[in-house]
Amino acid sequence: MAVNLAEPEGLMPVPGVRLAAIRTGIKDAPRDDLALALFDEGTVIAGVYTQSAFAAPPVALAKERLTPRAWIVNSGNANAATGQPGRADAIAVCDAVARELGLQGDDIQPFSTGVIGERLDVSRICAAIPALVKDLSPDQWLGYGKAILTTDTVTKAVSKRVSVDGTDIILTGVAKGSGMIKPNMATMLGYIACNASVAPDVLEQMVQEVADGSFNRITVDGDTSTNDCFMLAATGKSEMAAITSVTDERYVILQQAVLEVAQTLAQAIVRDGEGATKFVTITVAGGHHAQECLEVAYTVAESPLVKTALFAGDANWGRFCMAIGRARVAKLAPNRVSLWLDKVQVASGGLMADDYTEDAGASVLAQDEFRGMIDLGRGDATETVWTTDLSYEYVRINAEYRS
Amino acid sequence: MAVNLAEPEGLMPVPGVRLAAIRTGIKDAPRDDLALALFDEGTVIAGVYTQSAFAAPPVALAKERLTPRAWIVNSGNANAATGQPGRADAIAVCDAVARELGLQGDDIQPFSTGVIGERLDVSRICAAIPALVKDLSPDQWLGYGKAILTTDTVTKAVSKRVSVDGTDIILTGVAKGSGMIKPNMATMLGYIACNASVAPDVLEQMVQEVADGSFNRITVDGDTSTNDCFMLAATGKSEMAAITSVTDERYVILQQAVLEVAQTLAQAIVRDGEGATKFVTITVAGGHHAQECLEVAYTVAESPLVKTALFAGDANWGRFCMAIGRARVAKLAPNRVSLWLDKVQVASGGLMADDYTEDAGASVLAQDEFRGMIDLGRGDATETVWTTDLSYEYVRINAEYRS
Repeated sequence: MAVNLAEPEGLMPVPGVRLAAIRTGIKDAPRDDLALALFDEGTVIAGVYTQSAFAAPPVALAKERLTPRAWIVNSGNANAATGQPGRADAIAVCDAVARELGLQGDDIQPFSTGVIGERLDVSRICAAIPALVKDLSPDQWLGYGKAILTTDTVTKAVSKRVSVDGTDIILTGVAKGSGMIKPNMATMLGYIACNASVAPDVLEQMVQEVADGSFNRITVDGDTSTNDCFMLAATGKSEMAAITSVTDERYVILQQAVLEVAQTLAQAIVRDGEGATKFVTITVAGGHHAQECLEVAYTVAESPLVKTALFAGDANWGRFCMAIGRARVAKLAPNRVSLWLDKVQVASGGLMADDYTEDAGASVLAQDEFRGMIDLGRGDATETVWTTDLSYEYVRINAEYRS
Repeated sequence: MAVNLAEPEGLMPVPGVRLAAIRTGIKDAPRDDLALALFDEGTVIAGVYTQSAFAAPPVALAKERLTPRAWIVNSGNANAATGQPGRADAIAVCDAVARELGLQGDDIQPFSTGVIGERLDVSRICAAIPALVKDLSPDQWLGYGKAILTTDTVTKAVSKRVSVDGTDIILTGVAKGSGMIKPNMATMLGYIACNASVAPDVLEQMVQEVADGSFNRITVDGDTSTNDCFMLAATGKSEMAAITSVTDERYVILQQAVLEVAQTLAQAIVRDGEGATKFVTITVAGGHHAQECLEVAYTVAESPLVKTALFAGDANWGRFCMAIGRARVAKLAPNRVSLWLDKVQVASGGLMADDYTEDAGASVLAQDEFRGMIDLGRGDATETVWTTDLSYEYVRINAEYRS
């Protein structure tokens, strides 16, 4: 069902990173469900975490651990809405990993995705950790990427090579997410590592900026998980001198490369969105500022009426109107608003464009990928989000999962 | 498909109001599509109108006309996204009605619902107006209610009799709306008239308060139309002295009666919601203030994941968690949040309740009507909204309408 998304190929090891995956059996499916990434000493790691008030215990713990050396991720159980016992479980798993690696518990960041409201089977996980650690190897990115999946239908991973001031830098990333996850949550996890050398505060800014241009610009159903995380690691295992300032021109080069990897992963999540039959880019231009462009873009991208029209291939200016009109934007002037679907102008100055024909609109929406471009006609800001249509299959997946 | 909703019976004429309906043919279906309500001199009218930035020309016009004597409503064409020509069309229709009634154009409020972005067929409408006016009669509420429908499957109308300080007051109301309307818009129209005597500024406050307790508390898909209006008329055709202050104790009695009529109509819209198989009441208690209760209630009621779980009869605490967690509420403490489905406590203090069983939850959700009660555990405010589940049928109606 995924829209133009193939299994990843050609993943490259990142110097300073070793990975492993194993099956513990906490997930019913006969697939790996526990993944570990170990970083060489000196690696700098930064992350962004769910804004949910119901952030799961492992997320809270990962956020507190500012100088981690490893990520341990289980799928099959989100360890969410589990309170203090859930926190103790996450700590126990980290402690077991740390013992096996000769590190401290605080060196380990835990991540979980899957069923909510159920206790983690800590003993089953801990029993698998020695074998997991023994399997660590630089070329296990694909295995790591597979073990974190839940209802995803395709593994999401990509590598990229970039020259930063003459030094070859390798970036490899994996992600999971598919709208809503087994059985109840819309968890999105993203992990990118590179062998660049970056100061901690600089990496912190980079991960925020990259998230805002990638994982924070996608929506399948407008629902946000308790367990979302996006992590970025820089191992420093290269010849380059450290980037210690965001004004360093190498910052821009590396940030752009990380952004490209993150966008590919984020878009892969949308392409694999539950029930998705279309991959849709919504761009809102001509806003006073980014915030109002995003407000309009998300209102359109999350409107059930727009999404069902996209599913039906119906180039429906009325539904766009309705969604733009209800976005929380002050003093929007409808008579300055225009809409394009790819290169076809549907509306101009708030009215159906004179030369627009339903056939022209329908031919754009017959494609499995296209862009809706809304011009608010009142400023210079532009923002883009990526989304899917709303299909029968979305309802089936989310209504029938347990049956 | 409507949930526990029958065709209305026993509608009562309201002294001072005459109505008529007719078929002009602007709607393809062989049904009446033009409705008129005429009020005796001295009638006071107040309304609330869509917040959409894309408010349709007739809505803007209705809003400007502060001392109206009649409502003219067409279905089949929303006269929305039609700009200045659309405004001229609405004025032309009002002028034609006024000529026939011996009134001024400014005395007529126009309303439209149906296709967006197409010019109104003014000549066809005007040709029907003489016969429409000739048909005016006090007992045509049902005809008026039928003529304003679009994709609705059931007529929404109700009457109520209340004694205000010894005077018998009759209230009759009609409404239309079904999530999204032919073919593209989610228009909701509501009209209530009574023979009470109320000063204009007092009626203005009453219509706002009633809307906030009824039509502003329903959501089928979170989408808001360009044409939504709710109008309240008080003809003064009774023995009671005018209510000239909101502190008059008769204000409370009348307001409560109007609210009951409005709630019945608003809930009828939800019961007839597109694809609805359940009628769900979401109450959020224990908030600091009404606004945060509403924010949580709407986030839950509009979450596609919650709605598909309700459709499936899955009492899914995880999905409620997720939706509550992403509501825009500052510093919500998950460990104070509890959830009930009717009398079954699902969660307590942010965790699944100890004695909760899936069977107990499933038995509540097997009903076609139930209440979800969320306690935020941090204050005294409570708010309630009404909504539906999200079914295959919703997708079918909205995806296939044009096919």
